[in-house]
Amino acid sequence: MASTLEFPAAEADLLEPHLPPLETPAFSESQTAFPARPFVTLTFATSLDSALSLGPGIRTTLSGPQSKAMTHYLRSRHDAICIGVGTAIADDPGLNCRLDAASRRRGPHSATPRSTSSPHPRPIIIDPRLRWDFTRENKIFQLVRAGNGLAPYIITTVAAPPQDKAQILEEHGGKFIVLDNNNSSDNDKSPEAPQTTTVGYLDWDLILAAIQAEGLRSVMIEGGGAVINSLLLVSRGGSSRRNHLIDSVIVTIAPTWLGKGSVVVSPDQERDRETGAPLAGPRLAGVRWIPLGEDVVLCGRIQ
Amino acid sequence: MASTLEFPAAEADLLEPHLPPLETPAFSESQTAFPARPFVTLTFATSLDSALSLGPGIRTTLSGPQSKAMTHYLRSRHDAICIGVGTAIADDPGLNCRLDAASRRRGPHSATPRSTSSPHPRPIIIDPRLRWDFTRENKIFQLVRAGNGLAPYIITTVAAPPQDKAQILEEHGGKFIVLDNNNSSDNDKSPEAPQTTTVGYLDWDLILAAIQAEGLRSVMIEGGGAVINSLLLVSRGGSSRRNHLIDSVIVTIAPTWLGKGSVVVSPDQERDRETGAPLAGPRLAGVRWIPLGEDVVLCGRIQ
Repeated sequence: MASTLEFPAAEADLLEPHLPPLETPAFSESQTAFPARPFVTLTFATSLDSALSLGPGIRTTLSGPQSKAMTHYLRSRHDAICIGVGTAIADDPGLNCRLDAASRRRGPHSATPRSTSSPHPRPIIIDPRLRWDFTRENKIFQLVRAGNGLAPYIITTVAAPPQDKAQILEEHGGKFIVLDNNNSSDNDKSPEAPQTTTVGYLDWDLILAAIQAEGLRSVMIEGGGAVINSLLLVSRGGSSRRNHLIDSVIVTIAPTWLGKGSVVVSPDQERDRETGAPLAGPRLAGVRWIPLGEDVVLCGRIQ
Repeated sequence: MASTLEFPAAEADLLEPHLPPLETPAFSESQTAFPARPFVTLTFATSLDSALSLGPGIRTTLSGPQSKAMTHYLRSRHDAICIGVGTAIADDPGLNCRLDAASRRRGPHSATPRSTSSPHPRPIIIDPRLRWDFTRENKIFQLVRAGNGLAPYIITTVAAPPQDKAQILEEHGGKFIVLDNNNSSDNDKSPEAPQTTTVGYLDWDLILAAIQAEGLRSVMIEGGGAVINSLLLVSRGGSSRRNHLIDSVIVTIAPTWLGKGSVVVSPDQERDRETGAPLAGPRLAGVRWIPLGEDVVLCGRIQ
């Protein structure tokens, strides 16, 4: 079994203002007071040239051991962890929490129970067209069988997912969540907020509402490039813009360049309607930079 | 006249290990012991997605006032400041030093004299084909006439630069430096170091030797994208690679994204000769991250 990771309390303290509240009331006590979506943390690690990996499907080690421990600390502090199908296919990720018990601040035995009795976040995989051809031998299911993780919820628009895949998921405690994209929340958007909130065939408002409906009160969105860029694009601030999707941004930057051709975090540019000039993307406020080994961790919220 | 800028001594202390030595012996005393090139600092400011500007020729304010003051502190600590012709055309830059006297650590009155008697760095503009169509009214010449900057040395391969341009330069104390690219130092490179050191039509070894030949013992290379990327590409470390061009890297990162289509710092990827797989670019060692206002300053050297 892979060893556990330690994350120092001093660094956890620095992250605390950028994380979902520790003192969330139990789900059943205040369900009516809940917001319409979970607390959303956008988090990922890039090179100096904003690259997640050297190329599509290439796993690339970027950040150091302290940053890795931080990622698992973040996993311990969120009810769910969300990735796109491209990352699921490329990385065969475990999406569990390997933080040692002493470094955890919530969990089944704490005063503030998680939505589930597991120390692990619920994996959410956004797979609109069901491209992920998984089997029981994928790492995520192996971890569930070993008691070291949770089975994924796969969000899709395919109305009737294959029975054999559904069975694998259900055996492990996971499931498909089928969204009806025709019921997109874009239908009732005001004209002042015209941009789409879609990623692939799916709508971020619908995705987050579906996560909320599962009783998952916080989600960290971890990748890959398409997911992150679409979320940044729809979250661009400004007077006539909505910025209602991301509560916190936590970016780890490693002191290296991966070069042109890498998979990068960089949202599509929007343009001024009159001049056609490109507009800057989101800017962070309430910024904190935390050096962590050779890397730096940037925490902030979108302005 | 533009006001001067202050840079705190505490932050200057943090930068000191990453800057040319303050205690350089006077040029005439130890000329023979000098290295074959000046001390080279690569420095620039980017967004989180490694962008210098929203698009070619678009001036984009990225970093905050503290970072701007740092840039002028760096200018006070280098004999020369080097940019590419694209930046000269797009920005009409002044390239002078607006740091107030109290924040300076060397200059005409210090114990360690600069190569010139000016507090300003010598602008070096790399313009292989003489695309910069300047006049006496460009900002850089206005500053010289006001006693607030030095005239540029323009490095080119054009054998006979236009007389009228040469006259403007000479009036202000600048000049053309004509390099013969046929005399490229690539001719005597060993087979173990096959990559080119050229940018545009010019060779970095030749450029740095030309700067050195002017008695300029340190140079900060500030932009734009083409210049930075070519320098990063030829400076990639590794066992069979040369890394003899950059002494120090100082990157300011602002907490914003500029989006796809921006002018980015990201060197071309090199590929493994056998597998064709992309190789990571340069990595920094001896890293220090210095939060500065909302930005962070990364200092390091290429591994």
